[in-house]
Amino acid sequence: MRNVTAENITDVFKGYMSNEMDPRMREVMGSLVQHLHDFARDVNLSHEEWRTGIAFLEGCAAIETEDRHEFILASDVLGLSSLVDMLHSNADATSSSVLGPFHVSGAPELAVGGDMKRHFGGPMLLAEGVIRDTDGKPIPNAEIDIWQTAPNGLYASQDDEQDTFSFHGLMTVGDDGRYAFTTVKPVEYTVPTDGPVGDILNACGRHPWRPSHLHYIVKAPGFKTLVTEVFPNDDPYLDQDTVFGVRNDLVMKYEEKQAAAFPDGMVLSGNVSDPFLYVNFDVTLAAD
Amino acid sequence: MRNVTAENITDVFKGYMSNEMDPRMREVMGSLVQHLHDFARDVNLSHEEWRTGIAFLEGCAAIETEDRHEFILASDVLGLSSLVDMLHSNADATSSSVLGPFHVSGAPELAVGGDMKRHFGGPMLLAEGVIRDTDGKPIPNAEIDIWQTAPNGLYASQDDEQDTFSFHGLMTVGDDGRYAFTTVKPVEYTVPTDGPVGDILNACGRHPWRPSHLHYIVKAPGFKTLVTEVFPNDDPYLDQDTVFGVRNDLVMKYEEKQAAAFPDGMVLSGNVSDPFLYVNFDVTLAAD
Repeated sequence: MRNVTAENITDVFKGYMSNEMDPRMREVMGSLVQHLHDFARDVNLSHEEWRTGIAFLEGCAAIETEDRHEFILASDVLGLSSLVDMLHSNADATSSSVLGPFHVSGAPELAVGGDMKRHFGGPMLLAEGVIRDTDGKPIPNAEIDIWQTAPNGLYASQDDEQDTFSFHGLMTVGDDGRYAFTTVKPVEYTVPTDGPVGDILNACGRHPWRPSHLHYIVKAPGFKTLVTEVFPNDDPYLDQDTVFGVRNDLVMKYEEKQAAAFPDGMVLSGNVSDPFLYVNFDVTLAAD
Repeated sequence: MRNVTAENITDVFKGYMSNEMDPRMREVMGSLVQHLHDFARDVNLSHEEWRTGIAFLEGCAAIETEDRHEFILASDVLGLSSLVDMLHSNADATSSSVLGPFHVSGAPELAVGGDMKRHFGGPMLLAEGVIRDTDGKPIPNAEIDIWQTAPNGLYASQDDEQDTFSFHGLMTVGDDGRYAFTTVKPVEYTVPTDGPVGDILNACGRHPWRPSHLHYIVKAPGFKTLVTEVFPNDDPYLDQDTVFGVRNDLVMKYEEKQAAAFPDGMVLSGNVSDPFLYVNFDVTLAAD
């Protein structure tokens, strides 16, 4: 069109899309551009603001590496990641929650009952639960990929002092569907604020804190893969998670227990001092 | 909020923004996230589609350099750049049009009447016009930054065969507001399709062509800087510019003229063979 206007440009864009293109791509691109244009019209976006937006993207690009995923972090703090999670949560299954930018694939195997804290100090936590289907039946041989912060609030990928898979473990459960491991209680932490996403949080007067949590990816053949998190119910940031990851069913009581209550058959059995923390978090997977 | 839902997350986001933040930033961020969330809800955006979007941004990041501005190109082919231009066009002034990703700052001075084509062959074009205010009075000493493709369809920054400022010139007009230069008629060309933006065009069944054009940035103290383009009225891509840059008042007739009509006082005066092309394009700047 040679007489493109601020009013008709969205229709001109849609008219440029081929009738032969993939119909879902047509729907998604049409809606994306409709909202992008509506946004610019609604706020009467200035050239300077447009340049600020481009500079934001270029700033993310400049620090993007295999270990630093600034675009995912942007999606997280804008609530898009959590929204996509919630749009596809299954009401009968455990809620999903953000993957976040710190997962490292290829974690070493951790046997059921294994210890993930190794030499690290801090409040000892025993986490266990059963992985079930929506009828309540245990799912044998389900796989659970676990990761969390070290006691200093950093993930392995952020911290030169930790090795690559520190506080990462990959567990395959037995016929009873039960997982169990010992670790250090994760701590609340800030998302990275030294990049363009930190500038946005700052400009919005927002803090960068997340409540402490364990991350799980739970997989089993025939079931939908679940990416989720477990939060302690006494965390000060539960009601203001900067990435919008908290769901009611993911908030658990971390009980204080005496050593005598520590179960047999775990790596640390017989070697635990009073008290330790205990969380039971059962996971329900939806059928695929 | 610990009970964030797909329905309330946009309000939760807005609630996180501080009352003390800059009010315009609050308006822009609130609208941006409202539209981003509405888009995800409207199309029920899947995790896989979200990952495709992140991969698009990361793919742009991977090829972004000082000479390759893939994020700007994305904005261009989605119509956002042109929309922002049109939202801030002044009805009494010449229409603005996209800056594009190929402008190089610091072009060498080109005297009024100078030649920009140097040793390059192709149809010779004489472009001239007067830079005026909205009352029709010439603006003395206005500055006009000119750039275009070489006859091979490439800008200097894309082409190892050209030097840095090939087909770039910076002209300061005299008291009469008149600019004039000789060049080769620019050619229609494709935006770069070897990156993620090319993948989008492909997926949408869109071609990557732009009609041929001269780029101008026109500046003068006391006036709004104008970024614009001039198109010949016989270009085959006028009605389907892939970056939505064509406006009616920027489409001009390129007349064929005989050497005897070539004006005096230009670098090539007395040295022009029949026929040459001539375009008159006057520019009107709005007061600042």
